[in-house]
Amino acid sequence: MSDQGDADAAAVAALVAGDRRALARTITLLESTRPSDRVRADRVLAMLPVDVAAPASRIGISGAPGAGKSSFIDTFGMELLAQGHRVAVLAIDPSSARSGGSILGDKTRMARLSREPNAFIRPTPAQGLLGGVARHTRECMLVCEAAGFDVVLIETVGVGQSEVEVADLVDTVVVLLLAGGGDDLQGIKRGLLECTDIVVVPKADGEGRAAAMRAVATFQHALSFVPPRVAGWSQPVLACSALSGDGIAAVREAIWRHLAWLREGGQLEAQRAAQRLRWTESAAIELLRTEFHRDAEVASLMRDLTPALSNGSLAPDAAARQLVACFRGRPDPT
Amino acid sequence: MSDQGDADAAAVAALVAGDRRALARTITLLESTRPSDRVRADRVLAMLPVDVAAPASRIGISGAPGAGKSSFIDTFGMELLAQGHRVAVLAIDPSSARSGGSILGDKTRMARLSREPNAFIRPTPAQGLLGGVARHTRECMLVCEAAGFDVVLIETVGVGQSEVEVADLVDTVVVLLLAGGGDDLQGIKRGLLECTDIVVVPKADGEGRAAAMRAVATFQHALSFVPPRVAGWSQPVLACSALSGDGIAAVREAIWRHLAWLREGGQLEAQRAAQRLRWTESAAIELLRTEFHRDAEVASLMRDLTPALSNGSLAPDAAARQLVACFRGRPDPT
Repeated sequence: MSDQGDADAAAVAALVAGDRRALARTITLLESTRPSDRVRADRVLAMLPVDVAAPASRIGISGAPGAGKSSFIDTFGMELLAQGHRVAVLAIDPSSARSGGSILGDKTRMARLSREPNAFIRPTPAQGLLGGVARHTRECMLVCEAAGFDVVLIETVGVGQSEVEVADLVDTVVVLLLAGGGDDLQGIKRGLLECTDIVVVPKADGEGRAAAMRAVATFQHALSFVPPRVAGWSQPVLACSALSGDGIAAVREAIWRHLAWLREGGQLEAQRAAQRLRWTESAAIELLRTEFHRDAEVASLMRDLTPALSNGSLAPDAAARQLVACFRGRPDPT
Repeated sequence: MSDQGDADAAAVAALVAGDRRALARTITLLESTRPSDRVRADRVLAMLPVDVAAPASRIGISGAPGAGKSSFIDTFGMELLAQGHRVAVLAIDPSSARSGGSILGDKTRMARLSREPNAFIRPTPAQGLLGGVARHTRECMLVCEAAGFDVVLIETVGVGQSEVEVADLVDTVVVLLLAGGGDDLQGIKRGLLECTDIVVVPKADGEGRAAAMRAVATFQHALSFVPPRVAGWSQPVLACSALSGDGIAAVREAIWRHLAWLREGGQLEAQRAAQRLRWTESAAIELLRTEFHRDAEVASLMRDLTPALSNGSLAPDAAARQLVACFRGRPDPT
């Protein structure tokens, strides 16, 4: 093994032994866009121990902007720490991959949790990622688990693709839906509820408490029209307040009940096996994309086709067929 | 040309002549997941006239659930009809592709516009689409333009990936941001604003009017930190009310001003050329994905790898490298 390989093995050993700087450095390595760093990152990922016997609990926390995900995670994370867990918080935020993340930084979002030694919070990096945000989050999750975090919370922003992606990453999906606001019946997407195991109505405090209770009833009604993510599970709807802490323990209990239910029926293992198959497919497509973009003959043909594409005389689909035929070293079938 | 080919050519002729049923049938053909229908759909798309001289105006309308996109489009669309335009409304809704779309159907969402002969509203289909929602929307857009609709409104739901996708489809991106609610500063993503040409604060009526005016000032301030999508454009922030119609004409004028600005500087052409190049890349990757999934040797290898993948002894990335090497007919490089 090269010196670099020895260094990576030492980094993995330090990471597994609980060295926080080794953890942070490893995730920084995963975020690098340098091809040589990617080779090292792949080597590190291959060296991580696979802990199938006592897997960490992977929990997705979704919700529209402003639903109070950060406050919820801050309070919920403190509750988990009080129970003796070690908690990692990661984010899938497709919009931040293109730019600089939210206008307010991540450090201010979880004020209490970010100061705790048994918590680890990592925002999505600002610059572009090789292989996409969801893949990066999955890799970070595996690294955090190797570092001894037994609960991984994955925060997703928005309504749409990221919920589907988080369902391919985690064991339990929690969705925060605001009372009133944008999350009334018109705004609830069937697709969102289909990806959900537990619905949480946040901000059930002070003047918002009555509205939250009405929202619980509304969402329970809406869920009666939607099949659960895993057959046989009845999705609970729970109100809570990150401010007062009311209802947070009940949310934790619902999550633990869901995880126990998955484990008892053998569903946890089946779900993770299915996730690994889907991740293999995603990784393969991603690898094909990378090889396609690096292919010199494809690049040369693309330059030749660009004038006709730009003026509209060649359709994108026809050009795509020529490029794929070139990539595969076969004559254009059309 | 086959009989089927003759029929498709006749359908295109009817579509271009303004036959609404031919339009609806063509879009239904695009939605079909049958491979033989896909061949026909590709043939129809290749037959569509390319109107580079007088292109239709392509406008994206984004916003979180509950931001009032439907009401805005209903009122804004009526305003466009009054000005003599023919308006098509399409949607990019990643969540509906997996399931059944919003709980309330699309027909009730734009009550006035849906009754107008010069408007055409098409919801995203419920079932899965070959090639993804954004590609389907792009194809529908080209069909609507061929059918003589000179304004295409593309509605996107949520905050995240779909905004990036709509920016690759349209000339002008309008984002609806609610006063208060979830769209306060915490909720505004830099990435969302970077993809935006015009910000609209809806529901500026009755008791909401004062809050909307305050939100206009807040968003103007936030935009001062964000570069525009196309350099040199200063993103306006406008309040309006779909209920009273106040401010709707000003939004239309801002959109027209943006389109004129793009045209004068030669940016419209440059932007559309860049979009066609990106679409070519997307279509090529999509085609590679399809060929990968259809490959018998890949499927056979995947079956062989599944036990090791399921029990965690083979990592998804390592399996992906084997599958891609198999697909490309080359030995696994690792």
